Amino acid sequence: MEVIAKALKRLREKRPLVHNITNFVVMNTTANALLAIGASPVMAHAEEELEEMIQIADAVVINIGTLDRFWISSMEKAVEIAGKLKKPIVLDPVGAGATLLRTKTALKLLESGNVSILRGNFGEIAALLGEHGKTRGVDSRTYDRNVAKILAFKAAEEFGLVTAVTGEIDYVSDGKRIYAVENGTHILSRVTGTGCMVTAITGAFAAVEKPLNAAISSLVVFGIAAEKANVETEYPGSFHVKLYDWLYRVDEELVKKMARVRGVEP
Amino acid sequence: MEVIAKALKRLREKRPLVHNITNFVVMNTTANALLAIGASPVMAHAEEELEEMIQIADAVVINIGTLDRFWISSMEKAVEIAGKLKKPIVLDPVGAGATLLRTKTALKLLESGNVSILRGNFGEIAALLGEHGKTRGVDSRTYDRNVAKILAFKAAEEFGLVTAVTGEIDYVSDGKRIYAVENGTHILSRVTGTGCMVTAITGAFAAVEKPLNAAISSLVVFGIAAEKANVETEYPGSFHVKLYDWLYRVDEELVKKMARVRGVEP
Amino acid sequence: MEVIAKALKRLREKRPLVHNITNFVVMNTTANALLAIGASPVMAHAEEELEEMIQIADAVVINIGTLDRFWISSMEKAVEIAGKLKKPIVLDPVGAGATLLRTKTALKLLESGNVSILRGNFGEIAALLGEHGKTRGVDSRTYDRNVAKILAFKAAEEFGLVTAVTGEIDYVSDGKRIYAVENGTHILSRVTGTGCMVTAITGAFAAVEKPLNAAISSLVVFGIAAEKANVETEYPGSFHVKLYDWLYRVDEELVKKMARVRGVEP
Repeated sequence: MEVIAKALKRLREKRPLVHNITNFVVMNTTANALLAIGASPVMAHAEEELEEMIQIADAVVINIGTLDRFWISSMEKAVEIAGKLKKPIVLDPVGAGATLLRTKTALKLLESGNVSILRGNFGEIAALLGEHGKTRGVDSRTYDRNVAKILAFKAAEEFGLVTAVTGEIDYVSDGKRIYAVENGTHILSRVTGTGCMVTAITGAFAAVEKPLNAAISSLVVFGIAAEKANVETEYPGSFHVKLYDWLYRVDEELVKKMARVRGVEP
Repeated sequence: MEVIAKALKRLREKRPLVHNITNFVVMNTTANALLAIGASPVMAHAEEELEEMIQIADAVVINIGTLDRFWISSMEKAVEIAGKLKKPIVLDPVGAGATLLRTKTALKLLESGNVSILRGNFGEIAALLGEHGKTRGVDSRTYDRNVAKILAFKAAEEFGLVTAVTGEIDYVSDGKRIYAVENGTHILSRVTGTGCMVTAITGAFAAVEKPLNAAISSLVVFGIAAEKANVETEYPGSFHVKLYDWLYRVDEELVKKMARVRGVEP
Repeated sequence: MEVIAKALKRLREKRPLVHNITNFVVMNTTANALLAIGASPVMAHAEEELEEMIQIADAVVINIGTLDRFWISSMEKAVEIAGKLKKPIVLDPVGAGATLLRTKTALKLLESGNVSILRGNFGEIAALLGEHGKTRGVDSRTYDRNVAKILAFKAAEEFGLVTAVTGEIDYVSDGKRIYAVENGTHILSRVTGTGCMVTAITGAFAAVEKPLNAAISSLVVFGIAAEKANVETEYPGSFHVKLYDWLYRVDEELVKKMARVRGVEP
């Protein structure tokens, strides 16, 4: 837990600039989540300015939630540039599995070899592994703890990066180790873009930490903020507001006290 | 009122997936409104994925609030696909009457014959009828109860669908019957996208109800949530937050107790 | 202070229609800020409808926060039309200096000669002056009161408009006079788009006031609302909500009591 508390401290000291190419639904919410936690967001998708923007950014977050051919082209270019400039890249494959366009776009971005962290839900990661050919048969789309754990491990191995599969329990793996994160709360599912917020914050942590700890730290810190917000209210509108408050308020002490992470066997 | 309470119950049991092609201003708010009421939102506009997305959706909502030629093309394709797949379609003709582009786009979508429910304000529906040629003279853009009632009736008849004209009193018609809904509160006009939220929620009800009852149920349930939120606060920022809380909290008992709907003479 | 209170009164009487071509991140928040203060927002970027929309608008706000070639083309056309129709134009050069695309786009819009008010932060205005050729050497990007004052003055002179440079203290100049505005609060920097909200509200004031007083009034009224919101909460999520509440609640008495504006020497 010490290492997560330190990661949060470093994030707030550095105030990393996180460059996002994300979906229209969550642009405002992810920008606010990044500001609340102590990072600086920037949103830019014009290909003409990607090189300059990524040059000054500390991490790049790609989220395919409302993709089209223009945005896909920007995402591909951003991943190429960020790879070249050695900036950490976090990918959120929103809706992979729902349509081929999403699955293929996510896979193409992954195949660049430049993505550092993949953060998705059960069905999305399952779809990416299924489509990728080597893990056919993973077509259960209903969250299952044991399968979620295996998905995280296999996706990490297959794509050569850190994978976080989020759900009732989140599993994070680098293809060797697996960690289970149990922070969070059910009401998160009643606010749009909370998964996208975690992805964005993972970008902020990736600017100050190695991918594995960045992914874990983001899930733990976000989950704790959500738990604290949920103590204050059980309704989604008020919870959403309090979530930003607690992303701002969560501190090292709270992390040490409330973090629920453990290593698990593959 | 019983029938509206049952509609809400069915909505929450089914948790319909509502596919939205909507405007940039309200993407986040309509997604949150759908989640709060108990539905699942998805936003997707790329033509390449529309068929797959609409296949898995239970209803389609089209909102022309920030249209351009790319989005118009997506909307036209979505309406065609949803028609073919027999999915209910709700159209919000935001800004019809303000510009010809909006009026013409809305009319073209209506002319497909696939739209199930048209939800707009007084001026928008008036503009659509005026442009359509048969009801010229309806150019008053100031809300008037009697004209609103006639607009709902005539638009329903003319376009062969259910129309809801919202304002001080909302009128819903299928071209035969007319209902007046009096739930709601004035402060709604001080939060952007509340009309768009109703339209989105109408999509959720259309997934579990016939169009006429879907339109009425949406207006009543949303109006009740707004009234309850307004009891807690009279200021727009706080009201907006409480509105989501009450979309989540509104239940069958509250509907039975607070619904204000009545049949009116054409 | 009397003149600012009167400006607020006029804004609320007129309820100006403010046409925005703005960035995806803040579309919802600026629309809500405009509604809360008492104006009417409209967002439209399709070139086909710009002429009609600007015809009915009382002011035009251009914000380059998430530009691309399609949107740049719309912005250029909107500035041309609004100039021809003598509608006040407010420009927010978001990210000027971060990328050449942004700097050049903002400069091109300024060179039309149609922009009435330029509202940016220290680094943005410095970049515009630096790029423009006559003020090279202004490359400090760290806010400094004395430099901020000079930037406001020089940009006003150079571009022939009113400039507001916002930061710890805001400076507003028409190239002859300079005013310092000290309303506001630190937590504003933890909510995305608060600068964009001020720009949008400046558009609303520009519909009822000459540019210099419009820019000052907007900064004062927004700053007071922020101060009042900050009294109620010190956390960003709750602050954001209360900010809308206070944009709605701020009145002439509060303006007279709390405004902190003074003329300063160039």
